[in-house]
Amino acid sequence: MRRFVIGSARNLIHRSHQNSQFQRPLLSSSYRLLSSSPSADPSSSSSSTMAPPVALNNINPKVLECEYAVRGEIVTLAQKLQEEITAKPESHPFEEILYCNIGNPHSLGQQPITFFREVLALCDHPAILDKSETQGLFSADSIERAWHILDQIPGRATGAYSHSQGVKGLRDAIAAGIEARDGFAADPNDIFLTDGASPAVHMMMQLLIRSEKDGILCPIPQYPLYSASIALHGGSLVPYYLDEATGWGLEVSELKKQLETARSKGITVRALVVINPGNPTGQLLAEENQKAIVEFCKQEGLVLLADEVYQENVYVPEKKFHSFKKVSRSMGYGEKDISLVSFQSVSKGYHGECGKRGGYMEVTGFGADVREQIYKVASVNLCSNISGQILASLVMSPPKVGDESYESYSAERDGILSSLARRAKTLEDAFNKLEGVTCNKAEGAMYLFPRIDLPEKAIKATEAAKKAPDAYYCQRLLTATGIVFVPGSGFGQVPGTWHFRCTILPQEEKIPAVVSRLTDFHKSFMDEFRG
Amino acid sequence: MRRFVIGSARNLIHRSHQNSQFQRPLLSSSYRLLSSSPSADPSSSSSSTMAPPVALNNINPKVLECEYAVRGEIVTLAQKLQEEITAKPESHPFEEILYCNIGNPHSLGQQPITFFREVLALCDHPAILDKSETQGLFSADSIERAWHILDQIPGRATGAYSHSQGVKGLRDAIAAGIEARDGFAADPNDIFLTDGASPAVHMMMQLLIRSEKDGILCPIPQYPLYSASIALHGGSLVPYYLDEATGWGLEVSELKKQLETARSKGITVRALVVINPGNPTGQLLAEENQKAIVEFCKQEGLVLLADEVYQENVYVPEKKFHSFKKVSRSMGYGEKDISLVSFQSVSKGYHGECGKRGGYMEVTGFGADVREQIYKVASVNLCSNISGQILASLVMSPPKVGDESYESYSAERDGILSSLARRAKTLEDAFNKLEGVTCNKAEGAMYLFPRIDLPEKAIKATEAAKKAPDAYYCQRLLTATGIVFVPGSGFGQVPGTWHFRCTILPQEEKIPAVVSRLTDFHKSFMDEFRG
Repeated sequence: MRRFVIGSARNLIHRSHQNSQFQRPLLSSSYRLLSSSPSADPSSSSSSTMAPPVALNNINPKVLECEYAVRGEIVTLAQKLQEEITAKPESHPFEEILYCNIGNPHSLGQQPITFFREVLALCDHPAILDKSETQGLFSADSIERAWHILDQIPGRATGAYSHSQGVKGLRDAIAAGIEARDGFAADPNDIFLTDGASPAVHMMMQLLIRSEKDGILCPIPQYPLYSASIALHGGSLVPYYLDEATGWGLEVSELKKQLETARSKGITVRALVVINPGNPTGQLLAEENQKAIVEFCKQEGLVLLADEVYQENVYVPEKKFHSFKKVSRSMGYGEKDISLVSFQSVSKGYHGECGKRGGYMEVTGFGADVREQIYKVASVNLCSNISGQILASLVMSPPKVGDESYESYSAERDGILSSLARRAKTLEDAFNKLEGVTCNKAEGAMYLFPRIDLPEKAIKATEAAKKAPDAYYCQRLLTATGIVFVPGSGFGQVPGTWHFRCTILPQEEKIPAVVSRLTDFHKSFMDEFRG
Repeated sequence: MRRFVIGSARNLIHRSHQNSQFQRPLLSSSYRLLSSSPSADPSSSSSSTMAPPVALNNINPKVLECEYAVRGEIVTLAQKLQEEITAKPESHPFEEILYCNIGNPHSLGQQPITFFREVLALCDHPAILDKSETQGLFSADSIERAWHILDQIPGRATGAYSHSQGVKGLRDAIAAGIEARDGFAADPNDIFLTDGASPAVHMMMQLLIRSEKDGILCPIPQYPLYSASIALHGGSLVPYYLDEATGWGLEVSELKKQLETARSKGITVRALVVINPGNPTGQLLAEENQKAIVEFCKQEGLVLLADEVYQENVYVPEKKFHSFKKVSRSMGYGEKDISLVSFQSVSKGYHGECGKRGGYMEVTGFGADVREQIYKVASVNLCSNISGQILASLVMSPPKVGDESYESYSAERDGILSSLARRAKTLEDAFNKLEGVTCNKAEGAMYLFPRIDLPEKAIKATEAAKKAPDAYYCQRLLTATGIVFVPGSGFGQVPGTWHFRCTILPQEEKIPAVVSRLTDFHKSFMDEFRG
């Protein structure tokens, strides 16, 4: 019964587990119990009867440590204001809360891609597939695709747990999509379908982090999922700074410097996180830059964790997204040369299907024994949701020229992407017009991350308010205009600099209002604090 | 930038975080980096360039420790045989693999509940809701319910992230369903919707377990999610034995004994896991027994983690499921008296919608500050999938008498449940007819857990095969008949006793074949090893 306490990993590696285990009585083999020394914790004696069993001082400190600003304090305040407005419309100087805090396109009115939803609906209720009315309601290729997908699923059972990595046929479609994107082979057995990309990131952190002595190189600014996941798994975030002056450039010299600093402090750096296109910074890495990053990971023996969930969100014609898999393969590096994990999600792109919780990671360059461990962890949660799995396969194999839905699909896709590009430009220009604000170009992703230089008097006021200046600015903006930005401190920034993250997702017709409300607020804020 | 390394929890509690943090330069405040002593790990020096960065000897040992037998070795073998049969139908003495290893009803041919799928399809593709053809394809109340659900979702956006606990309107429906079930108040703010029940269990383990000194009381036999989750979170499983002689009875005296044993060894026991109806044991707890368990948790200051995912799977008219929430409230215990978490899933019950990954936990008796921490952890993963959320609300508020779908719904539900009861009885009788096999009544859930007394010669043979006897038996059964059982060692059993878990899920018309294949195999197995 050794499995019931953490035993020696060696035993497991040598597979002597089952063999040795059944010869031992359960409790005497639970040596963790035997070897433990008495605990000082009062709740370990029955004298704790009257105290509540769970309190902040006795929960997992890693949970306390974890932070996630995207849904933090500012959003809680926004929800409170929302309720007040619903109860009493005139209670605030604005009619609605504009959530620019999170990349959640459908919550701001973006419509789903029709073809995707047709296929999902038909897979949810296959009983209607051969009804005549269905022909009138659904496109021919959505019906065809639904049949094809159902044929990939054993027993056509969309209500069954799938293989723990996801339905094999859907992984085949995703691998084919990756090959079409990169021009290099992809193996369906490398794909792990997950409920959005976040659980995939957690799985890798769980695999790599043994203690606070294990470090993960993360960009600053970063998407706070990474800091949260590293905190929850008890590791150390090793920050590397993106260079705002060069459009949030990623310098390998900075990676080297931070890696050495961390190592000199006894940290074993296990992996490098790169977010491309950048979140919250929106920059798109150049291929040469990516090659240098791959070389760096190979030389230093780091796993490259490539967050590529915004791969479809590119707004500058002169630049193109290149996956790290494509880049490393084009350098002649294969399975044996580089350990690379690429994260993809159905929540982003032009589709923005956040609520479906679909995503995957492509895991390459790991030994079969380690892959087996990743599979085991995936199997504990059985599988990701099948609708999300189906949607992930659709995103990687959308309608093609000649399909009935191709025209409507590409019109919907291009309409969304071109509108996002216009919104990004309008907001970028608006920010750059504000006193003391500078904003880099959003080449990709869904965000702007403007920098704001606040007057000394404002800084003083924020100290009195016991708030970071950026948090203070965002709170004032919210209560004055109903617009929700996230303070830069939630993502990380060079000490003494202040930023905020703003999504480009409000519907296009609302952008002028956002701009004017923001501009008016900013002017009065600066007037208030100008020396 | 303190948030980027695990800092002092005190700072977070006192909320001085934002305030203090922006005055410090990033690296100098990363005291985890500063305070760490040099590491001996070779991969912390760039001399590791040539070694693969990730190997079994440098991954998180908690991952190595974790085991999940339900999808373990035996299933891998089954998948291999499946492929061989597909490639060469005559390659084995059976035509198909019969997966009795996992509670996955739809994978064995169980059909979904029509009403649930109608609503899901309409919520996936609301564009067809007001089309005339839709009237002909969908029941009137499914259309009405879809409209109602969409109206609960801001912007009717099923493609948007929801509140991190789940859509408020859906939590309202679930709370109403709990009230109707228990006759006691339920608060939608206590509901956390999750992607199946497993992530909810992980969240609670993550919250409660600080180190291997923290223990969780778990039944033996248990559903291996618990041992896996405790291992992944670095805690200690404190086993308590169910009494096979009394139909897998749960004795509070045994709980007390194991609690004291653990405490005497310095383990702080945080929580008690109770699975009711039992998995793998299928017993249904009597209300008096539940009261004693509640009293025990209250007296000992333990969180009661109630796995109630099989609450609809009850096959004995003389017994009834009572939730621990109802039992504790009926004892007069409220929020302040007992910390109770109830887990529910859409994967089980009569619906068995495993692939939808819907579920929730109802969290009661925790302070607001701790609840805030649970919310924070939920928010890091944004939200559970919306289809799963919708299905969870449907399961807790199915069609009512008078609704157009009520008749078909109740016919489908009762047909499945009565068939499961018949299958359980047939298999139970068959097991009890086998030489050396005794099998308790399946009062609920989806499993039988027969005990097998193996001849001495068989035990010897298994030692030679370096397998536990139960694992050896299951492997022989699989290769001879294509039937997949899970060895009892995957769930835990009294040392020296051997069991296996068999689901009652093969379609009814297949049960006779299962019985005869099993009976023939067992006879020849016993003949082979009889002294």
